[in-house]
Amino acid sequence: MINILDFKDKYSEYHHQFIVDERVKQGFQLCSGDYNPLHNDESFAKRKGFSQCVMYGNVLNCFVSFFIGELLPTQEVIIHSQEIAYRQPVYLGDTLDFTAKVSEVFEMVNTVDFSFFFRNGDGKIVAKGKIQIGLIPDVQ
Amino acid sequence: MINILDFKDKYSEYHHQFIVDERVKQGFQLCSGDYNPLHNDESFAKRKGFSQCVMYGNVLNCFVSFFIGELLPTQEVIIHSQEIAYRQPVYLGDTLDFTAKVSEVFEMVNTVDFSFFFRNGDGKIVAKGKIQIGLIPDVQ
Repeated sequence: MINILDFKDKYSEYHHQFIVDERVKQGFQLCSGDYNPLHNDESFAKRKGFSQCVMYGNVLNCFVSFFIGELLPTQEVIIHSQEIAYRQPVYLGDTLDFTAKVSEVFEMVNTVDFSFFFRNGDGKIVAKGKIQIGLIPDVQ
Repeated sequence: MINILDFKDKYSEYHHQFIVDERVKQGFQLCSGDYNPLHNDESFAKRKGFSQCVMYGNVLNCFVSFFIGELLPTQEVIIHSQEIAYRQPVYLGDTLDFTAKVSEVFEMVNTVDFSFFFRNGDGKIVAKGKIQIGLIPDVQ
């Protein structure tokens, strides 16, 4: 089991690139069943002022799941809560730079808080949020 | 365009059943790339005190996307922000009863706030949260 205090320094910041490709979109549709026209009908999206179909915001929450499940120094974790605010549209084909930082470590309850943001190729922050996770030791 | 004030009474509460089946799990994996063992390795999940593999929490955010994209009385909407807290594990095969209620309507900025929860077959609330959406009229 990792020492939770290592999140304070050694493992306090994370970077990853996510590519919003067709696989991501199709997987999301399969999972969610959401076929809202903003994401699928270009003329609808244009009537709403966007240059093309907007990507589902919740694909970013799927990327957050990857961050917690795959990018931390331990896989013995579970998400307690999370929040996200969308600031700019994401489009199919975008490459997003993800940054997460540890904001607090609660040693007595095995809990770590992160803040995160996604930045697009134009350098704009497209979404930001917070995540609380718990470390889960083996039961005795 | 729907009259936003109708969210205060006529369209103030929503119910839906979501089934957490293999399609949901596979779509989520395709979208997220997250193969954390808590969700995929039964012996790992049991060592952590669960009866079987735990479902990814973020499939519930995908269901939230379906709620906003498909179940409202208008599809001319976009999510501004959302949050969720996980309270109980969800398992493959679970049927979840989803309830959402309008908590506030901000007529001047075309914005609606919802609170929501998911309840499992045992009647336990497995997750709860909030969503803020905006209505998006056609641009002139």
